[in-house]
Amino acid sequence: MTKRIITISRQFGSGGRSIGKALAQRLGWKYYDKELVEEVALESGFDAGYVEEHGESAPAASAFAYAFTQPGVPGVMRGMSATDFLWCIQREVVLKLADKEPCVIVGRNADYILRDRDDVLNAFIYADKAYRADRIVRLYGESEKSPEQRLNTKDKKRAVNYKHYTGQDWGDARNYHIALNSGLLGEEACVKILESLVK
Amino acid sequence: MTKRIITISRQFGSGGRSIGKALAQRLGWKYYDKELVEEVALESGFDAGYVEEHGESAPAASAFAYAFTQPGVPGVMRGMSATDFLWCIQREVVLKLADKEPCVIVGRNADYILRDRDDVLNAFIYADKAYRADRIVRLYGESEKSPEQRLNTKDKKRAVNYKHYTGQDWGDARNYHIALNSGLLGEEACVKILESLVK
Repeated sequence: MTKRIITISRQFGSGGRSIGKALAQRLGWKYYDKELVEEVALESGFDAGYVEEHGESAPAASAFAYAFTQPGVPGVMRGMSATDFLWCIQREVVLKLADKEPCVIVGRNADYILRDRDDVLNAFIYADKAYRADRIVRLYGESEKSPEQRLNTKDKKRAVNYKHYTGQDWGDARNYHIALNSGLLGEEACVKILESLVK
Repeated sequence: MTKRIITISRQFGSGGRSIGKALAQRLGWKYYDKELVEEVALESGFDAGYVEEHGESAPAASAFAYAFTQPGVPGVMRGMSATDFLWCIQREVVLKLADKEPCVIVGRNADYILRDRDDVLNAFIYADKAYRADRIVRLYGESEKSPEQRLNTKDKKRAVNYKHYTGQDWGDARNYHIALNSGLLGEEACVKILESLVK
């Protein structure tokens, strides 16, 4: 079965986003990451910043932020937590985009959401901590927390969110066709491998 | 750094051996699997069948089979368990073969043994249980134990052996450059990807 959708799950700092972007460009496919956030924001009425922050984060932290206590939210989400509502919208947006045209989707549990299609290739990008720590400081600058703390926090949030909404373990190789160590292989090699798999 | 050695670690039944063999043939490189067993048998004085059976199996099962209680074993291994002695010989053989010429080495914890070289590419081949169960019955026939039991036993033995001698977790993606789901990708795609990485 020819693949026309590539989902990229990635450890924080592994370069999965750059790889996805370069890959989409190389293939002439649509690329969804921030673009997906904007679409979800539009559909949900949430602020894009909120979607970006909570779309892949652990539900526990905001489980008490029940949407029905907030003014101005759509009636359809009454009684749903804000993150559950966000998950529903995100799921719909991913399904809709996947139907439209060939694309690369980064994050958002898209591998799970699209699991019933057989034209989807699921990739996981990872790298060791030293490589990722170095990379996030280079890209995003220093912060109060150590790079290791930032990696742990972000990865843990993604893992908890994934487990909560999919019942699967995030990063478990069985969920993916291929897992690439970007630190050892380099980003360019990762792009080339994924490109070769859909060509 | 150009890679001139590929190590293949593999789940039982995933086709890692066939992939390694085809890959070596394609590259014109030496292929070590059974061949390595024979070399180890020669150097250790053990029977090839014994090496094949215990070279990647859990040490616990044979930890009491201390070699010094067996007649005719070399003096150098007195006081060592047979599996520890086997590990030492296997390690030496892998290091020696890696020095000689470009090669593909299947199993035998070669990824760990060669960890200080930077001309080594480490791959892990895996697949879901249904694919592997089907494959081992097709290749090796039925047996008293169910295919699932056979997979579990063999994988567990490899994991325990790996942990014992390397201190690392077998199948942990961080030990590898790349992990390939042979069930989803197909063997031919796996061969091609690995070939492209060293060309």
